[in-house]
Amino acid sequence: MKRTVRVELGSRSYDVHIGPGQLDQLGPTAQSLRFSRAAVISDSTVAPLYASRAIDSLARAGVTAGLITFPAGEPNKTLATVGRIFDDLLAAQPPIDRKTLIVALGGGVCGDIAGFVAATALRGIPFIQCPTTLLADVDASVGGKTGVDHPAGKNLIGAFHQPRAVLIDVQTLKSLPAGELRNGLAECVKHGVIRDATLLDWLENNAEAIFGCNEDVLTELVARNVAIKAAVVSADEREAGQREHLNFGHTVGHALETLAGYSMSHGQAVSLGMTAACRLAAGLKFIDAAYAARIEGLLTTLRLPVRSPLADCRRAIEVMRHDKKARDGRIRMVLPVGPGKVETFDDIAEADIAQAVDYLRP
Amino acid sequence: MKRTVRVELGSRSYDVHIGPGQLDQLGPTAQSLRFSRAAVISDSTVAPLYASRAIDSLARAGVTAGLITFPAGEPNKTLATVGRIFDDLLAAQPPIDRKTLIVALGGGVCGDIAGFVAATALRGIPFIQCPTTLLADVDASVGGKTGVDHPAGKNLIGAFHQPRAVLIDVQTLKSLPAGELRNGLAECVKHGVIRDATLLDWLENNAEAIFGCNEDVLTELVARNVAIKAAVVSADEREAGQREHLNFGHTVGHALETLAGYSMSHGQAVSLGMTAACRLAAGLKFIDAAYAARIEGLLTTLRLPVRSPLADCRRAIEVMRHDKKARDGRIRMVLPVGPGKVETFDDIAEADIAQAVDYLRP
Repeated sequence: MKRTVRVELGSRSYDVHIGPGQLDQLGPTAQSLRFSRAAVISDSTVAPLYASRAIDSLARAGVTAGLITFPAGEPNKTLATVGRIFDDLLAAQPPIDRKTLIVALGGGVCGDIAGFVAATALRGIPFIQCPTTLLADVDASVGGKTGVDHPAGKNLIGAFHQPRAVLIDVQTLKSLPAGELRNGLAECVKHGVIRDATLLDWLENNAEAIFGCNEDVLTELVARNVAIKAAVVSADEREAGQREHLNFGHTVGHALETLAGYSMSHGQAVSLGMTAACRLAAGLKFIDAAYAARIEGLLTTLRLPVRSPLADCRRAIEVMRHDKKARDGRIRMVLPVGPGKVETFDDIAEADIAQAVDYLRP
Repeated sequence: MKRTVRVELGSRSYDVHIGPGQLDQLGPTAQSLRFSRAAVISDSTVAPLYASRAIDSLARAGVTAGLITFPAGEPNKTLATVGRIFDDLLAAQPPIDRKTLIVALGGGVCGDIAGFVAATALRGIPFIQCPTTLLADVDASVGGKTGVDHPAGKNLIGAFHQPRAVLIDVQTLKSLPAGELRNGLAECVKHGVIRDATLLDWLENNAEAIFGCNEDVLTELVARNVAIKAAVVSADEREAGQREHLNFGHTVGHALETLAGYSMSHGQAVSLGMTAACRLAAGLKFIDAAYAARIEGLLTTLRLPVRSPLADCRRAIEVMRHDKKARDGRIRMVLPVGPGKVETFDDIAEADIAQAVDYLRP
């Protein structure tokens, strides 16, 4: 089983290929895009698992490739890591040029870093994403957001840079810790809430097969979610309008993630954020209480948290005011207004937001 | 006297305002673009001269602005300097957002660095260029090229990011060392050779007034050159075709600059590069020898070098093969083929190029 989703972005359009064994298609894909040289960028966790398969696939297709690795983990998603990768990349002989392909092989952190290197090497060189986590598959691999963190906050330094292709090998999900799978599932629930209520049904019906890593179900899962993300990104590449809907669950989520000092996973934070947002929307009568309860139930089925002792509403509000998406200190929230439908608000009373965060306390 | 040149780039179009006293228009310009907050980025040479004028102008227009400085000089055009600027920029309270304006106040190095910071802060925030050298006025301030150097080469890390406006105060040219003025004049000759033979006449006739810093003549000089650069960039924003013509004189020039370890100024290097390119083109009968001699004479009139003991043809060829604009090791050269007209070649015999470089030896 293989699925292909087209991301429509004019001259920067590209295909996302999804299925078991897609990593072995890296060489043929690079060859079909007329590359003869590549640098594979991966982290210390993923490189030992998959780098040789990627490089072998490239070599069989006549694409010469080197490997550059960096230490795994969000704390290493820094400008300093980017600098060290550049030291390796720019030491290559013969020197890289604008026909050199970057391959980002790994999870979201790797895609963000390697994508940013591609965005800024020689003012932009092409790259292919080979994500290896469900979160990267359904979220980071589509949309062209690249970048690194700064002590002042996440993703504060970066660029928009679209890949030339994305290859998602769902077999790599079998090597994931269970917590990583759940991180991705939180974004899948988000996609259902913002655009496609039938995805919520599907998730309810297929949760068991997902956790069993059924390849056909994983392929379908990723394809449905990539299609939703692609449609949103195509309509709004630069985050001026509806792309903001992808922030559903992320306003409160990011705040809790910040308060937890990144000890909370992104998926857990977003799950809590969505729970709070649904509660808030139900309280404001945007949706009925049964729909909010259904989302909370689905999150629980997907083994995601809907309660946390870290939900300190006063401190969370303070963080939200300083979020990079806030404007003039006004908190912006994406809230459900019906099945598969959300809207953006910047006039929700802080007291109501605080109450919704407080609801998360066990 | 004031001149305005429009740089046409679709939704990223912007105006370049040229004339004496334009720095005092920074506040009104920022206000008209609806900014209420700015960060002025400048270097240790320019900040003491002009930063308070820039910040005062902003303040009078109701735009709150802070100042971030970095040590002047090309050796500081590094990713490390960018990191330190980010530390300052992201420590600002309240935190910057996508409505925060970056002002690049200084020469080409400052524009490249501050522009790169703007390109990558929050994945891209707006910036205004206030160049203070003739080279930055006529070259770097138009086109959206931003970035930093790496030990492996110049401008290897960067991004394309267009400013929202450019304000060129020709009075700042009076504070320039004479060598800096000549750096810019080399690019002016280049513009004449690639697009506008009447500019060559004009330069011959106005050399004295230029060196005397006549404000009207400087305004006319900058406006004519910005118009040429803007036309080239508008037609080819991403350097896929005719923008390559701007590399006239730069293939040999960059090589000599590299060999000189940056002890040679950019303008001197380009002057030598243009001399070699004209000699080469005359040898290949693309132009007549009189035209080549005329360009050499104009460069001399503008106090630019046409001979250098550093012109080692064997080493220069080696560097040119590794230039980031080379493709598959083939040296690409932009050569004049008639008055105001150039073409790009990648099939010039290396022996001919070597001979032209050798011609530069005293």
